[in-house]
Amino acid sequence: MTTSHTNGAPVANGFAHPVAQKIAELDASKVVVNLTQNLKTVPPVEDLVFGQTTSDHMVMVSYNPITGWGTPEIKPYGPISLDPSCSVFQYSTSVFEGMKAYVGPDGTPRLFRPEMNMARMKRSVARIALPAFDTAELLKLIKKLVAIEARWIPNVKGHSLYLRPTIIGTRPSIGVHASDHAILYVICCPTGPYFRTGPKPVSLYAVGEQVRSWPGGTGEFKLSLNYAPTFYPAQLAAEKGYDQCLWLLGQDQHVTEAGAMNFFAVVKRDDGDLDVMTPPLDGTILPGLTRASVIALVSAHPNDILLPHLPPAQKLHVHERLITMADLFAWSDAGTLAEIFLVGTAAVVAAVGRVGFEARELEAPRHEGGLGPVAKALFDRLTDIQEGKFEFQGWCVPIDA
Amino acid sequence: MTTSHTNGAPVANGFAHPVAQKIAELDASKVVVNLTQNLKTVPPVEDLVFGQTTSDHMVMVSYNPITGWGTPEIKPYGPISLDPSCSVFQYSTSVFEGMKAYVGPDGTPRLFRPEMNMARMKRSVARIALPAFDTAELLKLIKKLVAIEARWIPNVKGHSLYLRPTIIGTRPSIGVHASDHAILYVICCPTGPYFRTGPKPVSLYAVGEQVRSWPGGTGEFKLSLNYAPTFYPAQLAAEKGYDQCLWLLGQDQHVTEAGAMNFFAVVKRDDGDLDVMTPPLDGTILPGLTRASVIALVSAHPNDILLPHLPPAQKLHVHERLITMADLFAWSDAGTLAEIFLVGTAAVVAAVGRVGFEARELEAPRHEGGLGPVAKALFDRLTDIQEGKFEFQGWCVPIDA
Repeated sequence: MTTSHTNGAPVANGFAHPVAQKIAELDASKVVVNLTQNLKTVPPVEDLVFGQTTSDHMVMVSYNPITGWGTPEIKPYGPISLDPSCSVFQYSTSVFEGMKAYVGPDGTPRLFRPEMNMARMKRSVARIALPAFDTAELLKLIKKLVAIEARWIPNVKGHSLYLRPTIIGTRPSIGVHASDHAILYVICCPTGPYFRTGPKPVSLYAVGEQVRSWPGGTGEFKLSLNYAPTFYPAQLAAEKGYDQCLWLLGQDQHVTEAGAMNFFAVVKRDDGDLDVMTPPLDGTILPGLTRASVIALVSAHPNDILLPHLPPAQKLHVHERLITMADLFAWSDAGTLAEIFLVGTAAVVAAVGRVGFEARELEAPRHEGGLGPVAKALFDRLTDIQEGKFEFQGWCVPIDA
Repeated sequence: MTTSHTNGAPVANGFAHPVAQKIAELDASKVVVNLTQNLKTVPPVEDLVFGQTTSDHMVMVSYNPITGWGTPEIKPYGPISLDPSCSVFQYSTSVFEGMKAYVGPDGTPRLFRPEMNMARMKRSVARIALPAFDTAELLKLIKKLVAIEARWIPNVKGHSLYLRPTIIGTRPSIGVHASDHAILYVICCPTGPYFRTGPKPVSLYAVGEQVRSWPGGTGEFKLSLNYAPTFYPAQLAAEKGYDQCLWLLGQDQHVTEAGAMNFFAVVKRDDGDLDVMTPPLDGTILPGLTRASVIALVSAHPNDILLPHLPPAQKLHVHERLITMADLFAWSDAGTLAEIFLVGTAAVVAAVGRVGFEARELEAPRHEGGLGPVAKALFDRLTDIQEGKFEFQGWCVPIDA
């Protein structure tokens, strides 16, 4: 509705920032730490289920349009109380990030390329007109939280503390406007390897009827609102016996993402080398950190980094290009389809075993242990870098206590 | 992520309904009414700003996958407390409806075609896999709430009590799944006419860079997540001096909606009749109640209902068809563009004065009082029906106290 006409009240469209008044920026140095008196028992690592256990503390800081960003708190994990008319309930003003903290061999907690999460969060926040903040300050708060929660990082290979920075719009009114109130918070979930019983390949059901993203849509931003529309198609795929949806777009039925992960295909070339392909960042694809890291590692192999276990003479060639269902079937029919895998923060690298598409079934090559050679090489090298066992371009950032 | 593999825990995709156990359905007859001891002062009608005042009470009822729908409550308006990992914060599982209660000349509160809101809410809930419920039971709860809050319905022409039924996903886990926990609630906001100082025409800025909806997307459902992506483009439009965005889609730059309202154009025919056109319900358009009611009224004129003030010999012909920017400019250039107007629950009918598109400006014909003849006829007839002053096909439903 038109705010400038609403009941004659001259309300500014969007933010009602009082421009004349200086409002406070987010400032991590002001943090107030209020530790819990009742520490939880950290469950045995073998009992961890993704997202079901939260740690003792959370970061929380509020924004209002009069005074700006308030005093950041690190405080006991607990509920958030909001007016029923709040923006996040009514208009889905919410952004999150997914990142992990690891314990290195020296016992120091580490983050993996956190500045990329921060840069993406900044873009996402702007896309839905939530109050901006200095993401470098948020990163300081995250590091402080991780240092406090260090006992929650399982010191076991393949385990980590999953971090979920979140910002929600808390403007308490159903007027259809940008939210000029917000709460920024960070919660932590200890997590084990995605595949506890070994990397079993994932099955995908290709979906074109429901579309995850679209040119001019929000698929390239990490907005909470990109996820709810995927749940119903995921239920349909599950009923058909598939683990995840493969999201298609357009008349040419090209692949965008799979589940909530980026998609890669590996194809043998006539010269014996391998093409490693993933859809380009055309606005419909989430620019995943793991995606970017995989592209960087494949490009760096074998000169700047050696991906393990791969034949030394076999070169890898990265291509960011459209991949259609017809391409996948053509490579499969020609016998050149070597691997399909998915990448993301939660699973790092996951093999795809089969893809259902209309009445057809594409069988991807099976590999001993689940992951194909390229996926396995990337998984091993990436997790070694993440866990501080292998240094590469400063990707893994130690947290000073 | 793939639930069936997550840490080896065999969690069902989507809902974890225990199928063997009978869980409770939503049952309005179980409602517990807990009235506030501190009634608010109802503000003077001239001070009402849309969405900024809430009434004394709200409906609230929770769902969990073990016991189903709980005991509905009508209780004092107040905050909702949720775990920070909740689905609505993390994945935007939220649906709402917009409806209004009016006081008829007999002093009885009335609702306008509420079964259409309920049917749409049922479809929206299914689209994002929130727990289903019997919307007839919700409507009973809404009627009970309106009867209790009757003193909040301004007994002044053009005023009403805006009702906001909302359902949010409250599954307390960041695992990427449908929410098998939910809270269903209804809040009320007393509201005056959209245009307090008379119907001043709205200006629109045509936006193709960001798209509101797309085939296979969620534009035809009333999901909270359709709104957040519109706030940033709305800010850009406001900076350019426009009230609202006109949402375009496709190479042909056809109109879908404007702001959060449905779009109509009226074009003069060679035979002196008028074509009343609106985009078809192709999946990208919200099936608005006011849109459907406008189509019904125009179709019924002049045989089944007489729209006031229109020349008796001039017939109106409804067309649900694509309307491109080129069409609008062509009609304007030919001098046949008679009116552009928007329709929705909040404003009922709003005139459009101009449309900015790239470097061009389309000026719609100006009419004394703001609304053109067709828009004015529809506004008057619709509000008379809504306020119980004119009976048509049982659209206005009295609420028995």
